[in-house]
Amino acid sequence: MAGMHCTLIRDYDVIVTSKVFDPANSALSAALDCQRGIIVVDEAVMRMYGTSIRAYMEERLPGFISLVAHFSEQGKTLDTVLDICAAAQRHHIARRDVLVAVGGGVCCDLVSVAASLIRRGVPYITVPTTLLGQIDAGIALKGAVNFGGQKNYLGCFRAPSSVLIDPDFLQSVSRAELRSGTAEMMKIALVKDRALWFAIREHGPTLIQSGFRSPKRIGSELIDRSVELMLEELAANPYEEFGLRRLADFGHTFSTRLEELSCWRLRHGEAVAVDMALSSVLAAELGLLGEQDLWEILCLITALGLPIWSPLLTENAAREAVVAAVRHRGGALNLVVPRGIGVATFVERPGDLPGDVLGAALRRVQQYSADLRLTPA
Amino acid sequence: MAGMHCTLIRDYDVIVTSKVFDPANSALSAALDCQRGIIVVDEAVMRMYGTSIRAYMEERLPGFISLVAHFSEQGKTLDTVLDICAAAQRHHIARRDVLVAVGGGVCCDLVSVAASLIRRGVPYITVPTTLLGQIDAGIALKGAVNFGGQKNYLGCFRAPSSVLIDPDFLQSVSRAELRSGTAEMMKIALVKDRALWFAIREHGPTLIQSGFRSPKRIGSELIDRSVELMLEELAANPYEEFGLRRLADFGHTFSTRLEELSCWRLRHGEAVAVDMALSSVLAAELGLLGEQDLWEILCLITALGLPIWSPLLTENAAREAVVAAVRHRGGALNLVVPRGIGVATFVERPGDLPGDVLGAALRRVQQYSADLRLTPA
Repeated sequence: MAGMHCTLIRDYDVIVTSKVFDPANSALSAALDCQRGIIVVDEAVMRMYGTSIRAYMEERLPGFISLVAHFSEQGKTLDTVLDICAAAQRHHIARRDVLVAVGGGVCCDLVSVAASLIRRGVPYITVPTTLLGQIDAGIALKGAVNFGGQKNYLGCFRAPSSVLIDPDFLQSVSRAELRSGTAEMMKIALVKDRALWFAIREHGPTLIQSGFRSPKRIGSELIDRSVELMLEELAANPYEEFGLRRLADFGHTFSTRLEELSCWRLRHGEAVAVDMALSSVLAAELGLLGEQDLWEILCLITALGLPIWSPLLTENAAREAVVAAVRHRGGALNLVVPRGIGVATFVERPGDLPGDVLGAALRRVQQYSADLRLTPA
Repeated sequence: MAGMHCTLIRDYDVIVTSKVFDPANSALSAALDCQRGIIVVDEAVMRMYGTSIRAYMEERLPGFISLVAHFSEQGKTLDTVLDICAAAQRHHIARRDVLVAVGGGVCCDLVSVAASLIRRGVPYITVPTTLLGQIDAGIALKGAVNFGGQKNYLGCFRAPSSVLIDPDFLQSVSRAELRSGTAEMMKIALVKDRALWFAIREHGPTLIQSGFRSPKRIGSELIDRSVELMLEELAANPYEEFGLRRLADFGHTFSTRLEELSCWRLRHGEAVAVDMALSSVLAAELGLLGEQDLWEILCLITALGLPIWSPLLTENAAREAVVAAVRHRGGALNLVVPRGIGVATFVERPGDLPGDVLGAALRRVQQYSADLRLTPA
């Protein structure tokens, strides 16, 4: 018998910058350790910033080509990944050349999978352009595609070489997309940081309304703090090798099934909002969360224009979600539930969640949804 | 700016056993850390050992299903990987369930890619059934598929949880396949172990003739030693993060292009043999290898029934192979060439290999090929 010991070490920086594609800004070109590569740009981003991106490439990245594609949850498939791989092959991408993702969470996820497959792995950099990308999908190690109707069924863990966050992009992101990203911000606040939660309550509506430009500096501060909290969560277990209990999974148990049932028409953050609401009501039903905190949570989700209930999330669908989560979390449920604002715990076993509690919680959240719609914001 | 530090540690054992699917043998079931999984079996192996495999599964692996497929270099595609992924989805494979590959190098490579994609990574175990699988493709971290006519263009690094080597399988492997595996054994011997080289010279023909059963014990001993040498090579740089100079790449510079040009009709080991011969002649042309050692190398390759030259490997094709290798090795050529029997060095830069040397070497090896065919073995 012979033994093998394999250690992989990858470090990366998350850099917050401004006007990343201004030729005077060296952040991106300094993060590159190569002369050649492909910049994969979301077509909506290219429409908006094309002139600037092309000028930047001409001046600072002469060996790079751009690949413009439409990214959406519906198109989050292996076929789109293979389009990127084929472009890499045509452009003779070498082992140490780089892919750069410039777009939202789906763009970052797909480029990450492509980078992990090409030549068994080439480096990649993310420049997330949506709030969700900047505080969640674009800064972590996970890439994924949907497969056989299951969200994120195929994918990879692969650390980016660098992440560049430019909050300026949020000026041109739709309100709906900003609300969706704010849901991920509320997620991390609710399980880890009471102060961030109340900052979102104070400034959230204005930030969403102003494309995160107003109040001045606050947008950047909240992004910084969210990134910090997310990386703190990831750092202990970046490859999810040491157990599958993750606070960052709050809002990501029922939302997955809900997104599948909506055929990807529901935004990710909207599904996360519904999941956070249901998980919070479940926490209250299990005696883990006080009624006042529950009301605080449901009111803020609603006040930011996010749903707390969806007719697609039937009792049956919620049960399917529990079964799927148990499979994905190695036999444990590990449902994250808040115990207060900024502190959470885990419902570990499926048996800790009796069927009648789930049904009762769903009926309650549906009732709240009707009530809150009648309450002035 | 925030920093992330990501460490991934994976250890695995390579266990040599006998009659691995005898229900009395607990090696495989002991290596599993789960109740459920999929055994992916090459159809030729299933035809030969189906009764035993089914009896083993019934007795020791009741929660497992089998997936039988035809594996070949032509079918080493992402589509075949996706067939495995779809089976995993149908069978509700959970995060800690396992895939087991029972087959040759292609089967191990494809199962490795599938395991790296499913749920962003599930564990897998290899039970390589060919000599090439047992001493090379089935014991390392690399999985791959061919893409757009390029060999192994897409793939992964993913350590198996365990490797189980059962030399009994070699009794039913074709002579041609055994010769192909012996080429990989010669490869590792030539760059690292003079004693193994001369053991291959002494016993190779008998071993191939007898399905590695005769002389008794020698087959197992040579496999053990080859595995040990290969793991030693891998251990220093399992993810190829620390440079791309690998002694184990001997015979794998021109062979890749040759396999592509043959449309995968040439066996991997045959292409490696042609590459080893050319690389050795190049070493002699560059004054790095003595004529007597060169003759020793070419004679043994030929004596074992392997080719030292192919009309497909034209001077143009050899040049394309150099360009492709430089891309894959991050800008360096790193051509491995023998300096003697059991010791090798690197031709590092493409410029160290002037065009006329390549042409001269190709003409020489073609001449040797004609000469040796006239020489009695």
